[in-house]
Amino acid sequence: MRPQACPLAAGENGVSELRRDPILRRWVIIAPERTGDLSPRRGGPRVEAPGPCPFCPGHEHLNPVEIARVEHGADWRVRVTPDRHPLLRIEGQLGPRGAGMFDLMNAIGAHELVTDTPHHTETWAELPVAQMVRLLGTYRDRLIDLRRDPRFRYVLVLKNRGAVWSRYQHAHSHVIATPFIPKRIEEELSGAREYFRHKERCAFCDQLADTLRTSERVIGQRDDFVSFTPFASAYPYETWISPVAHAADFGAVSDAELTPLAELLVDTLARLGKSCDDPAYSVALHSGALDGGDHAEFHWHWELVPHLGHELGMEWATGIFSNPVAPEEAARRLRDALPP
Amino acid sequence: MRPQACPLAAGENGVSELRRDPILRRWVIIAPERTGDLSPRRGGPRVEAPGPCPFCPGHEHLNPVEIARVEHGADWRVRVTPDRHPLLRIEGQLGPRGAGMFDLMNAIGAHELVTDTPHHTETWAELPVAQMVRLLGTYRDRLIDLRRDPRFRYVLVLKNRGAVWSRYQHAHSHVIATPFIPKRIEEELSGAREYFRHKERCAFCDQLADTLRTSERVIGQRDDFVSFTPFASAYPYETWISPVAHAADFGAVSDAELTPLAELLVDTLARLGKSCDDPAYSVALHSGALDGGDHAEFHWHWELVPHLGHELGMEWATGIFSNPVAPEEAARRLRDALPP
Repeated sequence: MRPQACPLAAGENGVSELRRDPILRRWVIIAPERTGDLSPRRGGPRVEAPGPCPFCPGHEHLNPVEIARVEHGADWRVRVTPDRHPLLRIEGQLGPRGAGMFDLMNAIGAHELVTDTPHHTETWAELPVAQMVRLLGTYRDRLIDLRRDPRFRYVLVLKNRGAVWSRYQHAHSHVIATPFIPKRIEEELSGAREYFRHKERCAFCDQLADTLRTSERVIGQRDDFVSFTPFASAYPYETWISPVAHAADFGAVSDAELTPLAELLVDTLARLGKSCDDPAYSVALHSGALDGGDHAEFHWHWELVPHLGHELGMEWATGIFSNPVAPEEAARRLRDALPP
Repeated sequence: MRPQACPLAAGENGVSELRRDPILRRWVIIAPERTGDLSPRRGGPRVEAPGPCPFCPGHEHLNPVEIARVEHGADWRVRVTPDRHPLLRIEGQLGPRGAGMFDLMNAIGAHELVTDTPHHTETWAELPVAQMVRLLGTYRDRLIDLRRDPRFRYVLVLKNRGAVWSRYQHAHSHVIATPFIPKRIEEELSGAREYFRHKERCAFCDQLADTLRTSERVIGQRDDFVSFTPFASAYPYETWISPVAHAADFGAVSDAELTPLAELLVDTLARLGKSCDDPAYSVALHSGALDGGDHAEFHWHWELVPHLGHELGMEWATGIFSNPVAPEEAARRLRDALPP
C-alpha cells in the first residue's frame, strides 16, 4: 500500500495551541486544524475550489460576516471577513501555562481575510491607484481597531501572490493580530533599539540617508516615499518602501499620504513583474509594536520579496542567506524595467 | 519581447561579498557568481547535466582535487572535494571594512562538497550503516581540520535531498566554514547561554529529560542516542537526533559512538520516507561554536526537516511558524512507520 502523503493530526489532537521554543524563545503555532496547509509535494498550483467564488460580488452570502467594507457608490470595493480556516481564533483567553519545562498558551488572535478587489484575478500591480489607496486605508484602520484589544501585541499585514499554497484564487490578503511579537519583528525592534542606544538616531533613517546619498539602490520616489533594495538584501530583488521622514506607526499615516504610497507600491510591483517574468511574491507591512514605546527607534516600511525558486536549505539550517543578485544590480534593473 | 526570467548580475558586479544587515545584525552572502541559483520559477527538478557524472567512480579526473577520502579496500567510499561554485572562497583575507553606515567583508570561507557514496542515486535512508559511519566520521574530521583556520568561526554540515534547487544529481552533502556564526546558530547559542545563566543547567539536557519522561515525542533510541520531535516543532515532522548525555562538540565524538548514531539516523530517515511518501528533506548538524567556550551550555544535535510544500509567506515576513502536525502525532506516526 502506498502510504498517504504526510498524514495529519486529527480528532482529539485537533486543537491548535501556541508553544514556545525554550531555546530560541520563539512562539510556534501548532495548528492541526489547518489540515489544508500541506499541499501535494510535487503538485503545481492548487486548483480552484469547485462552485462560485465566495469573494466575488453577488456571492457575499457565501462569506457573510463582514468586519469592514469600503464602498464606492452602491458597490463594495474592499471587504474584510473572518478567515474561515483561521491560524488564531478570536474568542477566548490566552491561558498561559507550563507543561514540564515548556510553555504554551491558547492559539488566540485575529485572522482576517481582506478581499483586495471585486475582480477575481486582479493583481496588486494591476490595481488602479484609487483602489490601492482604499486597500492601504483598510489596513491602517484594521491596525487601529485591533490594537485596542489588550490581548494582542502585534498586527501583521501580509499579501501572498501566486503562491502554490494559497487556499483561495480570488485576490486577497491577510490581517493577523498575534498575542506575541513575531520573532522577525522582535529582532528588527531589538536591533533598532540597540542602534538607537548607540547613536540616538533611528537606524532606518540612517539607512535611508545613506541609500539616498549613493542612489545606486533607489528604485523610485513619490513625494516623501522611496522604494529601494536594502544593502544586505537577503533575497534577490528584495525591495522596501518607506517614508523618508521618520515615522514609527503605520496607523498614523494620513489619507493624503496614502496616494503617493499607493502609487509607489503599484509602480514597484509592476517593475518587479516586468523584471522577473511575473513572479510569485510576498509583501508585508512592518510597523512598530502596538504599545507605541518604540516611537523614536522604529520606522515603518513595506517589504516585498519575489519567490524565485532560490533556496538552499541553508537558510533553514543556519539562517545564512545567499543572494545571487547584488542589490545595486536589482535596483538598476527595476529602475530600467518601465520607461518613465 | 518576453523578459528574461530574473536576470542576474554579471561582469564587473560579479564579485561575491559578505554584507551585514545593520538592523538585524546578520551577514548575507551577496553571491553574483552563483548564477545557477535562480532555478526556473515554474520548473520541476533540475535536469541532469549532460555528460558523465563527475562524482561517480571512474570519473574522478573530472573532479580531481581531493581534500579527503575514505577508502575500503582498493575503492573510495567517501570523497571530499572543493565545491566548484563555492558560496565562499578559501583564498584570501577577510578585509572587514565600512561603506557609509554599512559593514562588509570578503566572501571568505570553505565550501567543500562531500560525495556521500559511490552510488549515484543512493539516499541516506538507503545507506548501509557502515557507510553512514564513514560519512559521519568524515564530517567530524573535516570539522576538526577546518577549525584550525583562525579565519573561521563556524563549520556547518548540510545535506539536502530531493530539492529542486540542487546542482548535482549524485548523492552529496556540504561542509561549509564561515567567518561568522550563522544567525540561527547564534540564536541557539545565546538562548542556551541565557538558560544556563538562569539554571546552571544545559537547556538541551533539560529538554531531553522532559522529552524522555513523557516519551510521546520520542521516535527511537540506540545506546545513548535518541531521535525525537521537539515540543515547539516549527515544521511538520521536524526531528532531532542527539546524545542523551551532555556533549557540546561533535568533533569529540568517538569512533565507537558513530555506529549507534548512524543506525539511528538511517532508521529515522527510513521512517520519514515511509510516513511522508519519500519527501525532499534537509539535514543539518548543530555543533558548538569553534572556540569551545560553550562547553557547558551547548549540546550537539542533528536537525531533520522534510520539505512538504507547507509555506505561508508568513515565515518569511514575520518568523512566525505554523505547523499543522502536532509533534506528538508526528512522533507516533514515525514510531509506527516501520515495524520493530
